[in-house]
Amino acid sequence: MPYFRPLCCETKEMSLPTPFHRYLNELEVELRSVLSDSASPLYTMMRYHLGWVDERGQNQQSSGKLSRPTLCLLACEAVGGDWHSALPAAAAVELIHNFSLIHDDIQDGSWERRNRPTVWKVWGEAQAINAGDSMYVLAQLALFRLEGTGVPSQKIILLSRQLNQASLRLCEGQYLDIEFEKYLDISIDQYLDMIDKKTAALFECSLHFGAFLGTENQAQISSLCSFGRNLGMAYQIQNDLQGIWGDNEGGKEAPYTDVRSKKKTLPVIYALHKSEGIERERFLKIYSKARISPNDVGRVLRILGSTDAQAYTEQIRDKYHLQSLKDLERAQLPSSAAQELREVATFLMGQEGK
Amino acid sequence: MPYFRPLCCETKEMSLPTPFHRYLNELEVELRSVLSDSASPLYTMMRYHLGWVDERGQNQQSSGKLSRPTLCLLACEAVGGDWHSALPAAAAVELIHNFSLIHDDIQDGSWERRNRPTVWKVWGEAQAINAGDSMYVLAQLALFRLEGTGVPSQKIILLSRQLNQASLRLCEGQYLDIEFEKYLDISIDQYLDMIDKKTAALFECSLHFGAFLGTENQAQISSLCSFGRNLGMAYQIQNDLQGIWGDNEGGKEAPYTDVRSKKKTLPVIYALHKSEGIERERFLKIYSKARISPNDVGRVLRILGSTDAQAYTEQIRDKYHLQSLKDLERAQLPSSAAQELREVATFLMGQEGK
Repeated sequence: MPYFRPLCCETKEMSLPTPFHRYLNELEVELRSVLSDSASPLYTMMRYHLGWVDERGQNQQSSGKLSRPTLCLLACEAVGGDWHSALPAAAAVELIHNFSLIHDDIQDGSWERRNRPTVWKVWGEAQAINAGDSMYVLAQLALFRLEGTGVPSQKIILLSRQLNQASLRLCEGQYLDIEFEKYLDISIDQYLDMIDKKTAALFECSLHFGAFLGTENQAQISSLCSFGRNLGMAYQIQNDLQGIWGDNEGGKEAPYTDVRSKKKTLPVIYALHKSEGIERERFLKIYSKARISPNDVGRVLRILGSTDAQAYTEQIRDKYHLQSLKDLERAQLPSSAAQELREVATFLMGQEGK
Repeated sequence: MPYFRPLCCETKEMSLPTPFHRYLNELEVELRSVLSDSASPLYTMMRYHLGWVDERGQNQQSSGKLSRPTLCLLACEAVGGDWHSALPAAAAVELIHNFSLIHDDIQDGSWERRNRPTVWKVWGEAQAINAGDSMYVLAQLALFRLEGTGVPSQKIILLSRQLNQASLRLCEGQYLDIEFEKYLDISIDQYLDMIDKKTAALFECSLHFGAFLGTENQAQISSLCSFGRNLGMAYQIQNDLQGIWGDNEGGKEAPYTDVRSKKKTLPVIYALHKSEGIERERFLKIYSKARISPNDVGRVLRILGSTDAQAYTEQIRDKYHLQSLKDLERAQLPSSAAQELREVATFLMGQEGK
């Protein structure tokens, strides 16, 4: 499934909260220096995926929001650290995220990401597997650049172990996500466990990296880890809502994308449990079909409506969002830093205009 | 392409040189402890690939030869180190090797490995991508177990960086290998560069790990690295020979496998350059076909014969093999250790019966 659907497009970039702008240049310099030392076409695929070049390797600029590395650097700054020293860690989480996207697009058979053809669609599956593998390797190497910012070796090993443990959770989440495609009786707990692994793990890791590099205060680190995890959960659930009821990617796609592709996201799983009788039978029948017709989309939306699936999903999202804000309070950060983290969290909830 | 085709099968195992037997038990214990801490079905796929369980997760035993980790431990012992302390490094290279095989089988569309269906054939491509990714992550985590054997953090980072650099070369080699499928005019230098990355890099890394963990003698480490690299080249070229003229996998398959699947290995690339006139035209025509007929196989074998492709390939293999033996001399190891490394090298050349 194309999780992590970008919530903004270029025209909306001006509404990004301040921290996104503050780190952007140096983050890009860091990422580019990790990817710059080879002319191999393997790197063209990776640069293409990151939005730096087009299919022919010509310069272009359409990169993602860099949410995870921004949160990492903001956490570092918030606990009183020098965010510059955390740049290699921020780059590493961004590369892990992108490795997972390249492989995810192959696994889902997704044709588009960020309004461009996916890597496998341009270069074929075999080479896209390679591009994802290479991106993963580069994430590991990016992290070791912490040696250059004076981080002691023991700390680097600890971070590298955590990056890999988060990646393993990501793979386990991805495994479950693919498995769930086969079933119609997924419980809400199973779904929440899946997104905890697939999405929240890397958010938690991003916050942990920043906090760990900025302070020795274990209580603060632990609160920010929990903030990251809950924010990751809320962010994924917000994506689930966007996938059905949101304006997708600058209005270029029609809405209800996730219904049209029969994705079993939280609103659907909830409605599958809540619906009854003939409505439920119809629902199960539609989700057992190979393809879904426009009429079926209308029927599913009506079932989602009659079961209050949107309100339920918003409630679960808000629960995690609220929990993340409580974590933030517990971290006892300076008020300006806490305010910025809150702004980023609110932005990721898609409520930036409100 | 199914490179690293196992040269032995279970019935031949008794002819494995002594070092393979010496390390086997502890190596398996180390590998199993890296893979043992999860009941997730994701791990079943990995254990299946490693030959420990069948498709249903029931115990089975049909693992590979463990050449790379054996070379790693032998190198450690040869330079006077305690091979037990290098077990995590040996496990890491074996897991990297197997990550690459799982993805390689998807990329090639190979149905079988070690006489069993490949991971993607059993669980589908999407989950097999996941299994490969997870195996890569576990390789990283395996290496960090060096902390438990008392290796200083700085050394572990250095080794981890090298493991990732070798993996990056492996991905680059894999990229080239897949690219070469499109062309008929690959030069011998291009081919040698590809296998240097795809095969020799991890052999070099295996030897480097063992030597580095066993000694501070830079000249010895460097000689053993070079030994590993040249041995890796010779091993791959021997595989190329086996793929055409060898008894494949316990005689279960007919010979000429690589011709039947139109693999552009060294003998074929050489013959493509050497053949002339109508013979060359016929050769190019056959290799441009989607499928090759039994008559075509005969024609290709005749062209390989008329261009002396087998003798040429053996000569290149022997050049690298000889070079690896010179590296070994330069390492100035105790005679018994040098003798064991020579035996392993000779075994990998498929000359164990001679």
